[in-house]
Amino acid sequence: MNNNLSSLRVRDIGEQGLLERLQRFCPPDIIGDDAAVLETLPNQSLIVTTDMLVDGVHFSDLTTSPEDAGWRAAAANLSDLAAMGATPMGITVGLGLPPDVTVSWVERLYQGMTECLSKYHIPIVGGDIVRSPITTLAITAFGQANPNFIIRRATAQLEDVIVVTGTHGGSRVGLELLLHPHIGQHLKPEQKQALITTHQRPNPRLDVLPILWEIVESQSKIQNLKSKITVAGMDSSDGLADAILQICRASNVGAIIESSKIPLPSAFEEWLTPEKSLEYALYGGEDFELVLCLPPKPALALVQQLGTSAAIIGTITPEPTVILHHEKTEIPDQVLSLSQGFQHFSQ
Amino acid sequence: MNNNLSSLRVRDIGEQGLLERLQRFCPPDIIGDDAAVLETLPNQSLIVTTDMLVDGVHFSDLTTSPEDAGWRAAAANLSDLAAMGATPMGITVGLGLPPDVTVSWVERLYQGMTECLSKYHIPIVGGDIVRSPITTLAITAFGQANPNFIIRRATAQLEDVIVVTGTHGGSRVGLELLLHPHIGQHLKPEQKQALITTHQRPNPRLDVLPILWEIVESQSKIQNLKSKITVAGMDSSDGLADAILQICRASNVGAIIESSKIPLPSAFEEWLTPEKSLEYALYGGEDFELVLCLPPKPALALVQQLGTSAAIIGTITPEPTVILHHEKTEIPDQVLSLSQGFQHFSQ
Repeated sequence: MNNNLSSLRVRDIGEQGLLERLQRFCPPDIIGDDAAVLETLPNQSLIVTTDMLVDGVHFSDLTTSPEDAGWRAAAANLSDLAAMGATPMGITVGLGLPPDVTVSWVERLYQGMTECLSKYHIPIVGGDIVRSPITTLAITAFGQANPNFIIRRATAQLEDVIVVTGTHGGSRVGLELLLHPHIGQHLKPEQKQALITTHQRPNPRLDVLPILWEIVESQSKIQNLKSKITVAGMDSSDGLADAILQICRASNVGAIIESSKIPLPSAFEEWLTPEKSLEYALYGGEDFELVLCLPPKPALALVQQLGTSAAIIGTITPEPTVILHHEKTEIPDQVLSLSQGFQHFSQ
Repeated sequence: MNNNLSSLRVRDIGEQGLLERLQRFCPPDIIGDDAAVLETLPNQSLIVTTDMLVDGVHFSDLTTSPEDAGWRAAAANLSDLAAMGATPMGITVGLGLPPDVTVSWVERLYQGMTECLSKYHIPIVGGDIVRSPITTLAITAFGQANPNFIIRRATAQLEDVIVVTGTHGGSRVGLELLLHPHIGQHLKPEQKQALITTHQRPNPRLDVLPILWEIVESQSKIQNLKSKITVAGMDSSDGLADAILQICRASNVGAIIESSKIPLPSAFEEWLTPEKSLEYALYGGEDFELVLCLPPKPALALVQQLGTSAAIIGTITPEPTVILHHEKTEIPDQVLSLSQGFQHFSQ
């Protein structure tokens, strides 16, 4: 990179100058009015989510390149849309910047964001750049969804089973490997890198939705159901345990989870104890997978179509508690809770 | 107010505790999922705008109460939607807060925001509250518009005239009165307060839209036009001069503005010189009025229906310059520009 360019700071070109440079990351036909205009499909609901990220609180140059910070910020918002069953339409980006941030840092942030967004053909449709003592990123993502196919937390039902997409725990272990490079010495370099990539470049599971809806529609037809099969769920951004507990609380049900069924990254087995693996899987967070509750037949079809990266890990129960069951071990059942669940397990 | 309550700080109840307290400002049926769900009308485009506001840069406790900061932030975003011809659907609010901000301050901010929003029946549909070294407010507003009735900057045409809604300059003078309470001594208290209120509680001109569209539809019919009358425009948040120049640049046209036609707050005439009045009107900013370009007949009908608060101030011309003409004076015509236009005028 040209040294002159890489040392150019925001104060040298001002917010307006920076905005002009960043316009190459946005579709040209959308820029230039007081607001962006986007076409919508008929009979769809609008789905909106927003996130705010602050330097030193939510990202840091110590562990995260600007490209990765951008990717992760975009991915987190897209994951919220995926968790609602929505097709993303675009995002807006608000950016607060100290004047001594380099232009290169900002362009690398946008590079990472657009790398993630372009995987799903999603544009940045608007933004605002302002002076601030601390680098701050505010993203709002919006999508559309058929009102009959919206995934909510509060609609889990008795006899539903719980499906998770992908493995859990990898993002947190990837972060540990970044923070403490001396650990995981006997992991193969590619295993180590895979875990780090899981942390740096999470993939929102928008790919699950078309598969899910096809199964729901065909099974609703086969079973001649009066109303379509309902899918409840959310994403596991705040941890798998949190997702299960939130869904159960919102739906006024409980669940029994089979610990051995939770898919883990392959490196965990040869490196971590079962207890530690489970701790990371349940409480690690930021895996951005989907946790879905639906009847057993469509659930099985979904898991089969998604392949080894998905599993049925439990069942919805009437009692409003979430039980963690450890098959083939002598560990007694445990009651999961956000505040103390895992501390109890670790004893 | 209860002293205990007013001294409660964000650190005492945490972001989660604060979020729970702020939920009373949001419709209860919208909260609780990964994203908000909103119904849309068929065949409408989605219109999205976003703003970021930082303590000490865009608002300050020295001049602005938290209620007014909230009102102004909401109004600015709604004004962007009005400027596009869009009907607002909702806003999201991202909030970065230092732990020592009082809960009362945040609640007063939300109080001001919802006071403005409720005038137009617009809900806060989502948000994010995070820890930050500096109070930061990120608002995204979204609305819907009939694709045939979207107001853009780039569609001003020859023979259009330029309409402004409301008076200009009042917001900036209101700010001056707040910053320097000793000025404007001979203004009546109610005049002073009116100017201060113009600054503290600007009204986005959403009320203009139904009147405008009715005139456009009926005149298009009367004149038996093949295609509907096009309305170009934007809001005057960055100043009236800026709005006229931006529209002309985007439309590749020019304009001639009659300085005596620009509506001013009534207090200006007895207090300020004509030069100073015009400087505030053109460059003061934050009046959040609409600047619209449309053919003379519907323009006249619009001004008549809006009453004394609106005027035709000029005409679109082919030459790509904006000329300020001073009728009945010996001041020569001036060329308006953003960078030097007014400095020239002040000489």
